Amino acid sequence: MAKNIKPRNEDYSEWYLNVIAAAQLADYAPVRGCMVIRPTGYAIWESMQKELDRRFKELGHVNAYFPLFIPESFLRKEAEHVEGFAPECAVVTHGGGEKLEEPLVVRPTSETIIGHMYADWIHSWRDLPVLINQWANVVRWEKRTRLFLRTMEFLWQEGHTAHESAEEAEQETLRMLECYRSFAEDFLAVPVMTGVKTDSEKFAGALRTYCIEGMMQDGKALQMGTSHNLGQNFARAFDIKFEGRDQVVQNAWTTSWGVSTRLIGALIMAHSDDEGLVLPPKVAPVLAVVIPIGKSDEEKKKVVEYFNPVLRRLAGDAEVDAASARLGNDQLSAVFYNNLTGQQIVVDMRDQMRPGEKHYYWEQRGVPLRIEIGPRDVESGTAVIKSRLGDKDVINAADLDRNSFDSRLAAIQDALFRRAVEFRNANVVDVASYDELKAFFAGSRGFVRCRFNPDRAVEARIKEETKATVRCIPFDQPGGTGPDIISGKPADRVVVFGIGY
Amino acid sequence: MAKNIKPRNEDYSEWYLNVIAAAQLADYAPVRGCMVIRPTGYAIWESMQKELDRRFKELGHVNAYFPLFIPESFLRKEAEHVEGFAPECAVVTHGGGEKLEEPLVVRPTSETIIGHMYADWIHSWRDLPVLINQWANVVRWEKRTRLFLRTMEFLWQEGHTAHESAEEAEQETLRMLECYRSFAEDFLAVPVMTGVKTDSEKFAGALRTYCIEGMMQDGKALQMGTSHNLGQNFARAFDIKFEGRDQVVQNAWTTSWGVSTRLIGALIMAHSDDEGLVLPPKVAPVLAVVIPIGKSDEEKKKVVEYFNPVLRRLAGDAEVDAASARLGNDQLSAVFYNNLTGQQIVVDMRDQMRPGEKHYYWEQRGVPLRIEIGPRDVESGTAVIKSRLGDKDVINAADLDRNSFDSRLAAIQDALFRRAVEFRNANVVDVASYDELKAFFAGSRGFVRCRFNPDRAVEARIKEETKATVRCIPFDQPGGTGPDIISGKPADRVVVFGIGY
Repeated sequence: MAKNIKPRNEDYSEWYLNVIAAAQLADYAPVRGCMVIRPTGYAIWESMQKELDRRFKELGHVNAYFPLFIPESFLRKEAEHVEGFAPECAVVTHGGGEKLEEPLVVRPTSETIIGHMYADWIHSWRDLPVLINQWANVVRWEKRTRLFLRTMEFLWQEGHTAHESAEEAEQETLRMLECYRSFAEDFLAVPVMTGVKTDSEKFAGALRTYCIEGMMQDGKALQMGTSHNLGQNFARAFDIKFEGRDQVVQNAWTTSWGVSTRLIGALIMAHSDDEGLVLPPKVAPVLAVVIPIGKSDEEKKKVVEYFNPVLRRLAGDAEVDAASARLGNDQLSAVFYNNLTGQQIVVDMRDQMRPGEKHYYWEQRGVPLRIEIGPRDVESGTAVIKSRLGDKDVINAADLDRNSFDSRLAAIQDALFRRAVEFRNANVVDVASYDELKAFFAGSRGFVRCRFNPDRAVEARIKEETKATVRCIPFDQPGGTGPDIISGKPADRVVVFGIGY
Repeated sequence: MAKNIKPRNEDYSEWYLNVIAAAQLADYAPVRGCMVIRPTGYAIWESMQKELDRRFKELGHVNAYFPLFIPESFLRKEAEHVEGFAPECAVVTHGGGEKLEEPLVVRPTSETIIGHMYADWIHSWRDLPVLINQWANVVRWEKRTRLFLRTMEFLWQEGHTAHESAEEAEQETLRMLECYRSFAEDFLAVPVMTGVKTDSEKFAGALRTYCIEGMMQDGKALQMGTSHNLGQNFARAFDIKFEGRDQVVQNAWTTSWGVSTRLIGALIMAHSDDEGLVLPPKVAPVLAVVIPIGKSDEEKKKVVEYFNPVLRRLAGDAEVDAASARLGNDQLSAVFYNNLTGQQIVVDMRDQMRPGEKHYYWEQRGVPLRIEIGPRDVESGTAVIKSRLGDKDVINAADLDRNSFDSRLAAIQDALFRRAVEFRNANVVDVASYDELKAFFAGSRGFVRCRFNPDRAVEARIKEETKATVRCIPFDQPGGTGPDIISGKPADRVVVFGIGY
């Protein structure tokens, strides 16, 4: 067991922070509640960005950039929005040595400033749809912070679209929710529940908020992404108008949707183990590490030469030649396995570390495959290949090619997803009464499904008494009606309660 | 001539803003001095980012992310640094509804906060070198702003490295300058002069600042990138120490280097013409636009069908099939020509625009190639291909393949670079006296080369009298000595004066 990592069942919160520290994913910054995303953590964010950006663009979106600062008055234009965000804002009052006439808010989200610009850009139905995404940092003054999950500043993408009709806006909102669902499940290997938020949990200013909710290994819920149908609320507040096909001037229909560096937290908490980080191969910046073993420099050199043709078969001659010519630290030489994703294979030649230390080092960083080769492998034409999930195979080095390498990675990806689905399914319970719900959350964590008619006051009371909130009204419904767990009145839908991060 | 663009020789400043507006690259934001980078402009930034990021990583750098906010006290730890940056800072005084104990500065650059973290991370020579880059937004409270060239908030990358020795730090500083030079010349097709800044122009806190200086079409100079050798200044201020190979604890040697969205301004001002934006093919997000011509929908359909095999030859079957299946606006269908760079070919099917309007539209957006096909081409098996630089060819459609397409693009890239080199060379003059220098800048713009011993007070006086500053002490030196143009004393080097943006 890793000495620097507390086991999950002893202290889950501590375990989470230990995994982050051991893999050097992030540090707390010297500014309260802010984090430094270290190279290992940032490479994971880059993997996610590349994949999401590709998916967004395939759906017709383009990127743009809007200012960090928002005039305070903008926030006030949408009544619910200012109520939701004003208490969380960081405010710039001085610039260039002078007091500002109007304070500037550091964006907590950009609906307002983007709405202002859209009013300038949109005049006719021919200008629609506008399908823009922004990659940016945002700031929300949080009282209690936790690395990746809730930090004062975080990185995210926020999509902002404008449409001709209510139907189109709703379609876009759902299309992007589906984009997030498939990204979470197929890429991050984290199963999610999809549904709609209750009014008390929706985005400040939205008509409806859809979400994907994941379950972490402690049974707590994590909101992993949201997609908001804003109706005409922001279009009215910011005067986004267009002349329709019917020649009538009308307000546009807008949406917004986002995911953030919180997804790195989700990834850690969904898959990692008591040995450290576990990364699904599709996300992993380093797919495999090669550890050459030898007692002398000469022996190691022989081992590396032996492995060279395999590496060339995997990464391609051009890539291996380019890597050999590269400057920098020659003790850790990385070759690109996939130029499109930037995923690498690393050959760990560091001579100040023993093979055991190297295993430990890469295991804690979640690298999916470890390939060990020593003098005996040179004799026998073999290699030892070990998966981060524990399987160990002695294979013929000649059999290691892109096909067999890719299927090993695919098998790990699948295993992680199946394991997470099983865990999630085992921790969803149905209850028929509030007493059952209370009893569940008194001792357990998980998703509790029950008949319930959403109501702001009742939800607040339940949260106070149990810490649980309605995570979503899931799309997946049993149908029929049954008694609301609180009021006993007929409820035609079930909701899912959970204790959230 | 484009009606919405003022000719360069009538009003260069107005021309610059007109080109930006016509191509919809950026808008002023409702916050003083801030800009909104619109999708067409942001796609150019994404092109640059991808290429730079690839080059940085090939040189062994990794990305990370540091906080937006810096405690005010950090800035004060390096004496020259605070003097240089404090007057330009935006200051957050309130957060979460409360006044902060210590105000936070919105980062104008990140040497201080990164220095603080490096002190935590670096302990031994084994931890070195640290080669980190950050893509981020920064804020400098500028009095006079101009889109892309000088805005209050801008996007950039800032590299921050730490090394064992003065020699290594100097090597890194020069390696990154060379990285910028080749990026500017080979990718942006903008020739640059390389050299070192005088003390009065160097980065606040640096030992030495190296730079690449471009010349715009009005003869003014633009600093396009800088690479700073910080010596041990920040290591001393932030206590970045390590135990060396000699077992002596010593301060590390650090560097920093950056380029910003200002490069979009450079690109516009170096290449564009009175018809609008001109983009070098390597940077262009859209490589070619295909304009199908036909009097009826049926005729247009036939033309598109005729062109389909050519498009498949260019972009590949998989890509064309994927594009056909894509959701979104079907009037402008884009196929990826290069998945690695994201560069596209667009087929412009918009029926509410006449072909002439489409020419105009894409010309103003700087697209390198325009391919027109009409019913007569269907008959004769031809296509009309026009370069953004004016050449027009009628070709056999069967001859258009990736090879011929790539060589047309390469020819445009070369022509742009040659044109810019010729312009630059024609506007460099050598002078032997201050009177000559004054006479030159009284009526002209360009680079003035002369013998001069850098001196803060003298440079200030020259700037006041002529507006010109020393752009750099170029690497390329004639050798020998000659009289300093001001003092007449022997000067063993020439410097280059220019009027900068």
